[in-house]
Amino acid sequence: MSSNKVQIFDTTLRDGEQVPGCKLNTQQKLIIAERLDTLGVDVIEAGFPVSSPGDFASVSEIAKIVKNATVCGLTRSVEKDIKVAAEALQYAKRPRIHTGIGTSDSHIKYKFNTTREKVIERGVAAVKYAKSFVEDVEFFAEDAGRTDNEYLARVCEAMIKAGATVLNIPDTTGYCLPEEYGAKIKYLKENVTGIDNVTISCHCHNDLGLATANSIAGVLNGARQIECTINGIGERAGNTALEEVVMIMRQHPTLALNTNINPKLLFDTSRMVSEGMGMVVQPNKAIVGANAFAHSSGIHQDGVIKNRETYEIIDPEEVGVTESAIVLTARSGRAALAYRAKKVGYDLTKLQLDDAYKEFLSFADRKKEVKDEDIHEIMRIKSIASAIVA
Amino acid sequence: MSSNKVQIFDTTLRDGEQVPGCKLNTQQKLIIAERLDTLGVDVIEAGFPVSSPGDFASVSEIAKIVKNATVCGLTRSVEKDIKVAAEALQYAKRPRIHTGIGTSDSHIKYKFNTTREKVIERGVAAVKYAKSFVEDVEFFAEDAGRTDNEYLARVCEAMIKAGATVLNIPDTTGYCLPEEYGAKIKYLKENVTGIDNVTISCHCHNDLGLATANSIAGVLNGARQIECTINGIGERAGNTALEEVVMIMRQHPTLALNTNINPKLLFDTSRMVSEGMGMVVQPNKAIVGANAFAHSSGIHQDGVIKNRETYEIIDPEEVGVTESAIVLTARSGRAALAYRAKKVGYDLTKLQLDDAYKEFLSFADRKKEVKDEDIHEIMRIKSIASAIVA
Repeated sequence: MSSNKVQIFDTTLRDGEQVPGCKLNTQQKLIIAERLDTLGVDVIEAGFPVSSPGDFASVSEIAKIVKNATVCGLTRSVEKDIKVAAEALQYAKRPRIHTGIGTSDSHIKYKFNTTREKVIERGVAAVKYAKSFVEDVEFFAEDAGRTDNEYLARVCEAMIKAGATVLNIPDTTGYCLPEEYGAKIKYLKENVTGIDNVTISCHCHNDLGLATANSIAGVLNGARQIECTINGIGERAGNTALEEVVMIMRQHPTLALNTNINPKLLFDTSRMVSEGMGMVVQPNKAIVGANAFAHSSGIHQDGVIKNRETYEIIDPEEVGVTESAIVLTARSGRAALAYRAKKVGYDLTKLQLDDAYKEFLSFADRKKEVKDEDIHEIMRIKSIASAIVA
Repeated sequence: MSSNKVQIFDTTLRDGEQVPGCKLNTQQKLIIAERLDTLGVDVIEAGFPVSSPGDFASVSEIAKIVKNATVCGLTRSVEKDIKVAAEALQYAKRPRIHTGIGTSDSHIKYKFNTTREKVIERGVAAVKYAKSFVEDVEFFAEDAGRTDNEYLARVCEAMIKAGATVLNIPDTTGYCLPEEYGAKIKYLKENVTGIDNVTISCHCHNDLGLATANSIAGVLNGARQIECTINGIGERAGNTALEEVVMIMRQHPTLALNTNINPKLLFDTSRMVSEGMGMVVQPNKAIVGANAFAHSSGIHQDGVIKNRETYEIIDPEEVGVTESAIVLTARSGRAALAYRAKKVGYDLTKLQLDDAYKEFLSFADRKKEVKDEDIHEIMRIKSIASAIVA
């Protein structure tokens, strides 16, 4: 487990889909699962099979079509959950059962009304039962972020003995600071017998805006799997954003960590998920927001024209943002117009953009898509000259 | 400067407004500035006065009305910029001029085509000139994130000697990792003569999703000002989100850091800025997103019903999310309906929510606002019983 390869465990279809207002049918889930497989994720968490017949069907269908990734189903530490998950996963090339139980005092006391020892017993029984169906069993210690490290180490050791191959240490409530979460992973790495034979997984939530930083702190301290979603969607403030952790590892080669992800598909995958789920991506979203690579201030534009690297660290094309990725329609904002206009030679001031945007909207009303030649026409109408763009 | 108080420097009206598609007139800026003052920010960066007559007018009008906060204007290290900023700030109770220059090799070479020594000379001249107008002068070392620490320390020392009261260390391109940014602040704290007499400021960008973590790493290593914006808006992927850093410090009392911010105004301020600027806040945005406190999965709802703290670390009311904050109209999503329904006693499953939502939309089409009594009526029509909500 001392490899530099970090496994990307995508839970867009499970934790990501667990969102008010989000609705995907099995057909839509299959399209997204295929795309995740092409994107290069190592594990696709396809759903929570026991939760509904729809979820069972989705996991089962996804298991059949995925070619490369491991397909994973979620369960509680409950026999029926595990049996149903195993059934849903029966056609997967690489099936994984993800089982677990809450380990924080708050969960033990209020959710289960039991004791620490009984929680370990239930977890061990679940791992062993899952192991009777599949080789690859991941155990989650729910609310590990608020679980005392010494007890958590005991939980992990028991699960390794029971046969778990992956240990998921979730910051379920999104409460941890990066140093704290990193220290937790380090503690487990140093205090759990057998830990080097399994993979530690980070599953972070973004309630305080720290999911990405916590996941990176996790891998810097020995974890080798990150659980994440496209666009960071998920319960409450969402999960770690896949595109952010992947690009951090790419942009920081000194970390010597890498993933299987093809970054050129990130932008398009983001749009596919956002449109499919009806979950808006805000313009200032890192990596995949409409403005993520838009320079609007005069000072920045001037710098970028002189040399792109003065203000830009990622080449937009690296994540698949090309002219063709920004399709101009009546629903496009000013950022998209500014981006495409720049690509064809116009560096617009804010006032010019406002002016051109009005004209753009009347073009967009008449045409399904506004093309490059239309942009030239808009600029001609508005008497905006082209600039030399570096 | 060893105080536990972290100054909140809001740049919503400067770096935040520097965004494609965002358009605020002076009147709107005044309303936001008044709100920021009430919210409790320590500094309001009101604009970049030399950049346009509109910006000059906005800074000047804001300077007149702000009662408590310092009002700040941005300048380059250029005499005319500083003179114009001083003029715009003349009626401020507490004026601050924010001047500076790029210090990374990339900026020195490609943007200015000059040398490290000449950059220090230009910065010193700017600080001294600003100092002839106001007592409070903040210096920014643009692209400090990619500036070599030894040279950056020399820059800082020269600016302190020239009279700077605040040193802003921006991660302009959003490139730094939290450890790296924290180490930079620590290096300055340990190697710059006179550093304890000035305030170090963190100004982080979110290109890799790390702005919040970097700002917190900064204050943990001795910085005492964070530059941020409401909703994290700003150039490209935006700035550090004010609501996130403020709530991290509140939620982690062991950090022993505090701010002047009244958290109860966070949600409403977020909406005011989002609506005023036309910048969407995604549902999974930390602290202020529509779903930030929405529990949708059965497991989570069950936990929350048993005890709120099993899955929730922040009481929504603490940041001003109350029934009245979630106004139901035809534009409301399922999350909002689920939230309000829960407040009046209905814990909806996803299927129930889908069903109720259709009925809700037909109510919303007929009425401007859907009230609590309408929710009861919708549930009656759909035969959904109320649950006991803890």
